[in-house]
Amino acid sequence: MFANTPKPPYYAVIFSSELSDDVSGYEVMAEQMITLAEQQPGFLGVESARSEIGITVSYWSSLESIRTWKQQTQHRQAQQLGRDQWYRDFRVRIARVEHDYSL
Amino acid sequence: MFANTPKPPYYAVIFSSELSDDVSGYEVMAEQMITLAEQQPGFLGVESARSEIGITVSYWSSLESIRTWKQQTQHRQAQQLGRDQWYRDFRVRIARVEHDYSL
Repeated sequence: MFANTPKPPYYAVIFSSELSDDVSGYEVMAEQMITLAEQQPGFLGVESARSEIGITVSYWSSLESIRTWKQQTQHRQAQQLGRDQWYRDFRVRIARVEHDYSL
Repeated sequence: MFANTPKPPYYAVIFSSELSDDVSGYEVMAEQMITLAEQQPGFLGVESARSEIGITVSYWSSLESIRTWKQQTQHRQAQQLGRDQWYRDFRVRIARVEHDYSL
């Protein structure tokens, strides 16, 4: 549910998206991409929620691990389908987590 | 829907939360806090989604503006109610956005 991240610093990819009207195949691919991301070097965890928009935040140990994941072959195919079919719009923000706390 | 943020760098507060069984008053307070946050110096925008967990990402021009908002009197009262009543658990991560792009 919550990502079990280490002590900062680490990195976050904040992905905010609005789905299109054609989401066939989306859920299966989203689950596959999370399974695949979990196998990447530097992956620390992921948190996701969707209502009017979706927000998925994945956590990574370095910018290099984020770059490598962005270039991963199956992930690139999924990104292309996302741009062409599933997403009406999205924002990606790459950020360095400097401080964190919990309840 | 999406926050209309400026060119990086700027800051993100990633707030991930699981609600308790007692959410009376929560929605009204959440809306009030967004209205209040919008009036704070350095506020740049906010994005929010909730399904199993909620993720709210607010964007700020500086760490100082985040600190000031955390100490704001009405916001402190809301934080206390959140800890005592509304949230079963939460995570807060403060991050420096270094790069962003969109569809």
